[in-house]
Amino acid sequence: MKRKEFRKLISVEKAREIMNNLQVFPRPESLALENAYGEILAGDIVTEINVPSFPRAVMDGYAVRAEDTYACSETRPVELKLLGNLPAGSDAKFKVSTGEAVEVSTGSPIPEGANAVVMVEYSSEGDGTVSIYSPVTVGENTMKAGSDIRKGERVLRAGRKLGTREIGVLASIGKKDVPVLKLQVGIISTGDELVQPGEKLTSGKIYDANSYTLYAGIRECGAFPLLYGIVKDNETAMKKTLETAVSECALILTSGSTSSGAGDIMYRLIDEIGETLAHGISIKPGKPVVIGIIQGVPIIGLPGNPTSALMIFNEFVAPMLRKALGEDKSLKKTENGIMGTRFRSEGRQQLLPVGLIRGMVYPADRGSGAITSLSGADGFIKIPSSTEFIEAGTPVEVTLFGEVEKPDLLIAGGFCPGLDLLEDLSGLYFRTLFTSSSGGFSAIASNTADIAGVNMPSSDPRGQDGILYNVPTVENMGLSGTVLVKGYRREVGLIVRQGSLVSGISDLPGKHLINRNRGSGARALLDLKIAEFIAGKGISKKEFIDSIPGYASGAKSEVAVCEAVASGKAEVGVGIRNCTEKNGLHFIKFAEEEYDFLIRKEILETFEVRKFLETLTSTEFASKLTSGLHVYERTGEIISFE
Amino acid sequence: MKRKEFRKLISVEKAREIMNNLQVFPRPESLALENAYGEILAGDIVTEINVPSFPRAVMDGYAVRAEDTYACSETRPVELKLLGNLPAGSDAKFKVSTGEAVEVSTGSPIPEGANAVVMVEYSSEGDGTVSIYSPVTVGENTMKAGSDIRKGERVLRAGRKLGTREIGVLASIGKKDVPVLKLQVGIISTGDELVQPGEKLTSGKIYDANSYTLYAGIRECGAFPLLYGIVKDNETAMKKTLETAVSECALILTSGSTSSGAGDIMYRLIDEIGETLAHGISIKPGKPVVIGIIQGVPIIGLPGNPTSALMIFNEFVAPMLRKALGEDKSLKKTENGIMGTRFRSEGRQQLLPVGLIRGMVYPADRGSGAITSLSGADGFIKIPSSTEFIEAGTPVEVTLFGEVEKPDLLIAGGFCPGLDLLEDLSGLYFRTLFTSSSGGFSAIASNTADIAGVNMPSSDPRGQDGILYNVPTVENMGLSGTVLVKGYRREVGLIVRQGSLVSGISDLPGKHLINRNRGSGARALLDLKIAEFIAGKGISKKEFIDSIPGYASGAKSEVAVCEAVASGKAEVGVGIRNCTEKNGLHFIKFAEEEYDFLIRKEILETFEVRKFLETLTSTEFASKLTSGLHVYERTGEIISFE
Repeated sequence: MKRKEFRKLISVEKAREIMNNLQVFPRPESLALENAYGEILAGDIVTEINVPSFPRAVMDGYAVRAEDTYACSETRPVELKLLGNLPAGSDAKFKVSTGEAVEVSTGSPIPEGANAVVMVEYSSEGDGTVSIYSPVTVGENTMKAGSDIRKGERVLRAGRKLGTREIGVLASIGKKDVPVLKLQVGIISTGDELVQPGEKLTSGKIYDANSYTLYAGIRECGAFPLLYGIVKDNETAMKKTLETAVSECALILTSGSTSSGAGDIMYRLIDEIGETLAHGISIKPGKPVVIGIIQGVPIIGLPGNPTSALMIFNEFVAPMLRKALGEDKSLKKTENGIMGTRFRSEGRQQLLPVGLIRGMVYPADRGSGAITSLSGADGFIKIPSSTEFIEAGTPVEVTLFGEVEKPDLLIAGGFCPGLDLLEDLSGLYFRTLFTSSSGGFSAIASNTADIAGVNMPSSDPRGQDGILYNVPTVENMGLSGTVLVKGYRREVGLIVRQGSLVSGISDLPGKHLINRNRGSGARALLDLKIAEFIAGKGISKKEFIDSIPGYASGAKSEVAVCEAVASGKAEVGVGIRNCTEKNGLHFIKFAEEEYDFLIRKEILETFEVRKFLETLTSTEFASKLTSGLHVYERTGEIISFE
Repeated sequence: MKRKEFRKLISVEKAREIMNNLQVFPRPESLALENAYGEILAGDIVTEINVPSFPRAVMDGYAVRAEDTYACSETRPVELKLLGNLPAGSDAKFKVSTGEAVEVSTGSPIPEGANAVVMVEYSSEGDGTVSIYSPVTVGENTMKAGSDIRKGERVLRAGRKLGTREIGVLASIGKKDVPVLKLQVGIISTGDELVQPGEKLTSGKIYDANSYTLYAGIRECGAFPLLYGIVKDNETAMKKTLETAVSECALILTSGSTSSGAGDIMYRLIDEIGETLAHGISIKPGKPVVIGIIQGVPIIGLPGNPTSALMIFNEFVAPMLRKALGEDKSLKKTENGIMGTRFRSEGRQQLLPVGLIRGMVYPADRGSGAITSLSGADGFIKIPSSTEFIEAGTPVEVTLFGEVEKPDLLIAGGFCPGLDLLEDLSGLYFRTLFTSSSGGFSAIASNTADIAGVNMPSSDPRGQDGILYNVPTVENMGLSGTVLVKGYRREVGLIVRQGSLVSGISDLPGKHLINRNRGSGARALLDLKIAEFIAGKGISKKEFIDSIPGYASGAKSEVAVCEAVASGKAEVGVGIRNCTEKNGLHFIKFAEEEYDFLIRKEILETFEVRKFLETLTSTEFASKLTSGLHVYERTGEIISFE
């Protein structure tokens, strides 16, 4: 067989050892103090001044010799001669002798001879005199020179991350420019299929996400990213970019072009102009990883897939950057969670992207081509090769994708604009997986979602006009331990262009239909309405649908349906009203379906679900619902399935 | 009495209410994606494309019609006609019919007619053909258009903080510029005593720390600070700066010039050109706080003291900024701790700066003039007016000064360069309070330090030459439950200029001495050496020391001693050898003192103390110790006090 791979994958331990031995040297750079927040100090800071640099009043009042006040009291004040006023910041010179005082403010220097400050509250000024009503002790309301920070003291150690507090200390000792560590990391994305965000996406291309996720990830580690853009799968172009990066950076990250596909030449290039230390780590998705050195500058080739690249970055590269910046303690952000569902492993070591919602961990892998596994993931877990299954309930450690905001609720099911409104009004953060209604039921069954938004109709005598929503499916699937919370009604109908001659289901034969995907409530509802229409007319369902070109199509979203109709690719579609209005289309209502929420019973009393339901039944939600969606008397009603 | 204050302080609740009602509006601003990391999204992001935008191969191999492969096996491959190669990023068009295949790479579009990809591992190419050895199902190794992110989906909601992951999602839908919230906050420092860091510190002045701590604090909240520098206590200058800031910012923070001292005119100015909403909050240190509005722009006057300003900022201003930036959840960083020592409150509501070390909380207040309370503090606790004492062991909630790195060990006692070396080699983070030896013993007694570095000599027959270090003091103070770990020896002696005629203690009479402060080991040792010298000579100690001008002086540090000698202010000083060498001075050794570590027994087995002791007894420490310090056979020896 052609293109068979013979290269030897190295172990995770070996990969770490190689990376640990790479020489990645940040260079010191001087930054203006205000720009140094969050950076790592490049050298020890020893103060050259005392803080304060002079004995200082810490209250408004009068600098005196404490001895002069010992005998005074509220009823028997002592009168001192007032020599003058010494405001804060003044360099006027006074010498206070017995029986004398100088007016001072907070921050004033203590004049020579004085050794205490009487607070203004315990004094009254006369003509060239001040009367003191309360004695002070030596040193009272004053502060000695150097009592904050002593000259010669090491105030900050090299390697300290500069927070608000450190910035304040540096300012107070007069440092305007501070030496910080600058670790410049070059980023190169490779692949003919990549287009830069902001440019037009032509056929067969995808946007370059890696340049930007790596940029953010490098910043999060405290290093300085430098973008070299997208390089085509062309040896000359790649070589040129690599050489520039080698001259400018302490480390280079590339992504893409490292697997064994036809266009992958990066690793051959590293071999040619540098040295390859490893090609492939035996952990999924580490197979395409390349580690090399070009003219002393380490280069790491990451997978092209954004989630894979980010996992390998967090697992292997980020710790190296942090170490190079002198962070002794591992800053890898991890959090413990409980596996929310059973996961079957492939029997090899792997990093699995996961979501972490209220302490529960859910696999977020949708195949290695997916970028959503990124939007749907908060981090990843490491699975050893010996693990076949991770059972639900198993404690696992999640390495987070940096500083992530974690969702409050994981919602699966059919798309609805009402969900966005519920999210906005509740203030909760939903992670939404649009799986159609059938996928929503499955997600509740497999415990991979908290709530499913569902609108699945069934022919059932218990329902109005013989159609009952969602309850039959829950019953048929045996989804015990759940509740169905009645949501709101949605106008469903046919979607046509303005001026279309289609006026109802009877007109469908001969018209090019764009249908919804199997498993969606809209498609199921259309089928029921067709059955209703043909009932007693002596035509079979097969006959009727065979007469509709495109009946077998399966658009994955309302938006896709509207587009197909608006663009003329189809004459008629099926969907909810809301979507048509934005697109200037005409809507022919044929039903009001019920969009409900299926919830696992054990989370009904959590703060998040209570907030969700409270919002659903609020008057604000009712009044802000978009056209074609209506709350009704059953909104919020709970049907329990034991 | 003059300058009596009549203004009415408002309650904390009232202050919060006023601040909550202030209108602080961030403006949306477009940022390039790579610069948007960490910013807050200003609007919902709805994707205008599907991701991927075309059906896509997720493996290298051959795009086929799955039906063609159903019957094949390893021993009976099926041979398909190879139409050509369709690399990732290519827009070449192929149409795959029954019996045909197209070579594809990961990321290639699936050509028309094909519905699956056979992995290259299960194929072999012939002459214009490819043999398939393993069947695939419909959709296998492919990914549908929109299966990651669906066109029309709201991918990110306004108000989301943009992390690595969010940046990746934005890139993958092609967003190059993103709308983020920009909340511009002006910073004005006022006071004639302020000098900008980097400039020369003249008599009576201090460096402006507030501009920089507030700058960092504002950045930490996600807002954009703008520095207006230092404004003198001059009404015209202040008015001009305020007016500029009002025209440029959504909020203005000033510090200083708000208390009732002579030079404080800021609050009168706000009254004049705007409206004062409050002057003074009844919580220490909130008395100088001013809240006002000028032409619709809120202005908050903070105390001039850096720690006070930062506490008021964190307690009142930071939550307002975060709220204005749409952070629903309070991001105030708090951590629970246990009070490590008894604290006596003043019977009024207050914010107390504290250190947080290994879960223990220690007051870090050194008086309102201190900036070190900032370097020594990790945050603050709020004490209600009803609290008289907080007992050691009480759980308290600490509001952190943002992202703070917390120390591993709190060390008090006498200054020693050996401590810096111990910190460097151990990798631990020490918070060091230089209190002299006597302060170190007290800190252990009051449980306000973990370790005290001490070098206190006593006349004691148990010691070598009748001098015993530290043990007698521990015994006299009754410091039970502690251990004394023997440290290292330090050469102590007289410090003189090169060419000085002083050659020992006998030469001190008539020479101007710069002595150390009472409580320091060096001063105590000099006294013992003087006693030794005069013994049997028929002169009293009083007589001898009275003959030494400057004997009563008390420099707070070695550095100050060396400076006094080097500058000629004194003829002779007392200290350790190390310090003299840096200053080109001459050193006349009169003893080798013992510098030891007093440690509370209950923390002896913590990771941090073990690491500390391990470093103390390491060969690396021994070899790197600076001149005049020596480890010896007793280094690391533990003396236990029950």
